[in-house]
Amino acid sequence: MTDDIATMDATAQAALVRSGQVSPVELVDAAIDRIERIDPQLNAVIHRRFERAREEAAGDLPDGPFRGVPMLLKDLDGFQAGEPYHGGVAALADAGFLAPTDSWLTERFRRMGVVFVGRTNVPELGLLPSTEPAVAGPSRNPWDLERSPAGSSGGSAAAVAAGLVPLAHAGDGGGSIRLPASVCGLVGLKPSRGRITLGPEAGEAWGGLVARLVVTRSVRDTAGVLDAVHGPGTGDPYWASPPSRPYVDELDDPPEQLRVRWTTTSPDAAVATEPEVRAAVQQAVDALGSLGHHVDEGTPAPWTDAEASASFTAHFVTAMGVWTAAELESLSALSGVTIDASGVEPGTWTLAEMGRGTPGAAYYAAVGGLHAAARALLEWWEDESVDVLVTPTIPEVPWTLGQFGAQPDNPVAGLLRAAAIVPFTAPFNVSGQPAISLPLGQSPTGLPIGVQLVARPGREDLLVGLAAQLEQAAPWQERRPAVHA
Amino acid sequence: MTDDIATMDATAQAALVRSGQVSPVELVDAAIDRIERIDPQLNAVIHRRFERAREEAAGDLPDGPFRGVPMLLKDLDGFQAGEPYHGGVAALADAGFLAPTDSWLTERFRRMGVVFVGRTNVPELGLLPSTEPAVAGPSRNPWDLERSPAGSSGGSAAAVAAGLVPLAHAGDGGGSIRLPASVCGLVGLKPSRGRITLGPEAGEAWGGLVARLVVTRSVRDTAGVLDAVHGPGTGDPYWASPPSRPYVDELDDPPEQLRVRWTTTSPDAAVATEPEVRAAVQQAVDALGSLGHHVDEGTPAPWTDAEASASFTAHFVTAMGVWTAAELESLSALSGVTIDASGVEPGTWTLAEMGRGTPGAAYYAAVGGLHAAARALLEWWEDESVDVLVTPTIPEVPWTLGQFGAQPDNPVAGLLRAAAIVPFTAPFNVSGQPAISLPLGQSPTGLPIGVQLVARPGREDLLVGLAAQLEQAAPWQERRPAVHA
Repeated sequence: MTDDIATMDATAQAALVRSGQVSPVELVDAAIDRIERIDPQLNAVIHRRFERAREEAAGDLPDGPFRGVPMLLKDLDGFQAGEPYHGGVAALADAGFLAPTDSWLTERFRRMGVVFVGRTNVPELGLLPSTEPAVAGPSRNPWDLERSPAGSSGGSAAAVAAGLVPLAHAGDGGGSIRLPASVCGLVGLKPSRGRITLGPEAGEAWGGLVARLVVTRSVRDTAGVLDAVHGPGTGDPYWASPPSRPYVDELDDPPEQLRVRWTTTSPDAAVATEPEVRAAVQQAVDALGSLGHHVDEGTPAPWTDAEASASFTAHFVTAMGVWTAAELESLSALSGVTIDASGVEPGTWTLAEMGRGTPGAAYYAAVGGLHAAARALLEWWEDESVDVLVTPTIPEVPWTLGQFGAQPDNPVAGLLRAAAIVPFTAPFNVSGQPAISLPLGQSPTGLPIGVQLVARPGREDLLVGLAAQLEQAAPWQERRPAVHA
Repeated sequence: MTDDIATMDATAQAALVRSGQVSPVELVDAAIDRIERIDPQLNAVIHRRFERAREEAAGDLPDGPFRGVPMLLKDLDGFQAGEPYHGGVAALADAGFLAPTDSWLTERFRRMGVVFVGRTNVPELGLLPSTEPAVAGPSRNPWDLERSPAGSSGGSAAAVAAGLVPLAHAGDGGGSIRLPASVCGLVGLKPSRGRITLGPEAGEAWGGLVARLVVTRSVRDTAGVLDAVHGPGTGDPYWASPPSRPYVDELDDPPEQLRVRWTTTSPDAAVATEPEVRAAVQQAVDALGSLGHHVDEGTPAPWTDAEASASFTAHFVTAMGVWTAAELESLSALSGVTIDASGVEPGTWTLAEMGRGTPGAAYYAAVGGLHAAARALLEWWEDESVDVLVTPTIPEVPWTLGQFGAQPDNPVAGLLRAAAIVPFTAPFNVSGQPAISLPLGQSPTGLPIGVQLVARPGREDLLVGLAAQLEQAAPWQERRPAVHA
């Protein structure tokens, strides 16, 4: 039995516990064993809490839907009280900073009955889409150890793809759930703005762009976690409308005849989509057509407008600088650790310096510019009566490590490289729409290629239903990475 | 018939049109006549569009719930295409700036079938709670012409209170719907954050603090307008959950046995509540008790915390500066009018200068601080299981004109004076909660005193139901100001 556990999703593992076939301690011990054996190749799990996890598994776990299932938390996007929270920042790692409290999402995960076995690697402050922080070294993609598991939730995705745990926490401010899901062959849903609380630390992050959830191997796991943790926290500044029924009810009752538009053309065609990626989107689109949906090619109007694309990028970069400056100040205040140029990577410091030079009114205008970009996107959406837009998650196949570091003459070289990774994902952080990456494609050499599905704000239900249909039509569960427990 | 119209609410006027007893032209002509006769005493209607209004009334009006009813728009908080939009800014007035487009809220008002007969006076950029702009002169309170109709929706409130029109547009970033409603004897509901679209010009205003609607004489008018105009616009950044039934259905089916807390203690007790105001709150609370609600005194915990109150004020002021700087830049860009120190009031310029000196990260942190304040407020709310909080709308009775100008040695004297007006209203702009001012109190000399009711985010339904109960228990419709059509 335990040999098979690594291939089971969280729903299946929880069912074993519920039926008494395995105990939480057995599941957790097996996960710890897998992490000890496999993670040295991946460098995904950078903080371990094995003894506490064993104690918790042996104790009274909450009677939630995933009781006894081992889970990893991302070392960013939320606290676990008494555990490290470094976010890839050397200054915090050197000081051994520990989080003072639990985030509410951490508490909600715990109420699912899961056992946290550790924390996963991230690029510094989640600013880059490849998990290669200087302080902890790169995480590696279990499908090809020379390649990146993407980021910022790269450690989480590598760990789930390799079967170390079935579930890991993730967060997404420009693609950071969907990108790692795409290159690691996982399901990665970025929920709508306001769907998941970011409290009590904050009402919003990155001015409303960040959404949090998990990466999983199955659609039903994503739906089950979403059911368990969605909904506002007390005092949140805004709130996604609740679903009309549980998300898991969508799994067996998929939506009929949706109006699907698809594109492989990135905003301003600034980044060419690789042929293997185009083929993956085409396959997904064909599958949707076969399922009875109305499928047509169509690129969002603002994406074909050079000026709109340029101002989107300018506003996003302006805002990023301010977020970075503010985040470093906030982490300094929280930890009591002075974070100066020696305590972060050069690209992060340069971005923060840019942010420090940005006046409040310029930041306010940038946020307004992003809101205007979201409006233009959704006006196209309404004009075309789109239910779901299908795009590549990433324009290229999984990339080799070592491309995102600072260069001697250019500290922000990694950020420039990032622009080629996120053109299809970041617009939906700005618009607050739900978007999911599904592992529908494969390169000729067997690397995973994600396809992104996007719905109107608040319509995660459609994405879950459609994803379940596609999972059944083109199942990915039997594909395994080269490195797997 | 037409003699009585000035005392009728919008619902009653619309019923006359529907039954054929009066025509839209008759209603509009009568309103124009009232404005011409009465407004010279009030200076509420600063832009008139009588000929266009007559043409529209004679033409094909949309078949909405308020077909044929004359309405005024506030000269701030939204555009009407081709009409002035000065917002109290001398530079824009001097240039004769006209709005390029309709705001979506303007369009939604129009679809109610109303006829816009003009635009109403505001303090410059809505920054002060008293409508005494240098460029247009003070508006006067029809209950006592030496007193202010408050602000920023002061022109709108004076016009409705005097019976010039039954409905006028209003907007509220720190109290600007509720304060004028309070001192003019009207119903003023500030909806939840995300309930009313601010598009297409913006996704949010004042970083999410501004909500827009109307001031009215009856609860049913407010409910009817809310039904007609609520709901997100395409591409809005966030969205209040839709009500489970129309708001007008709350009017005859009031909520049972709510848990009501009440206080007359302002945050940090910084402002003393005048005895007449305390008495008005006590009367309202007694009425709620008689209606069967559970009523207890209770002050929000953060309001009894000096440090929390001080940081709330500091964050609010920091953010105000940035909003003012950004708004002047945005209006300049939109209008092509250079707005320098000579084109605005000294207090506005000083605030904008402060904003220009505020770094983006400091603004971001201030918004985060306001979100934290909202969280603390709502944590008290949840801890106490409060359904509705009752407070004064304003700690003092309606004030005399002339208190909000710049002083030779202190350009922001008006802003300091404002701090004594808004302590009970501004916290709910920050928390995004719906809050309504009802004309339940009266001073010994007959001046109106508003009482504020606040509910959880998204629960306008409770406020409408409770307000209808109170309106029936303690009707205010027969009280008329000294100046009335």
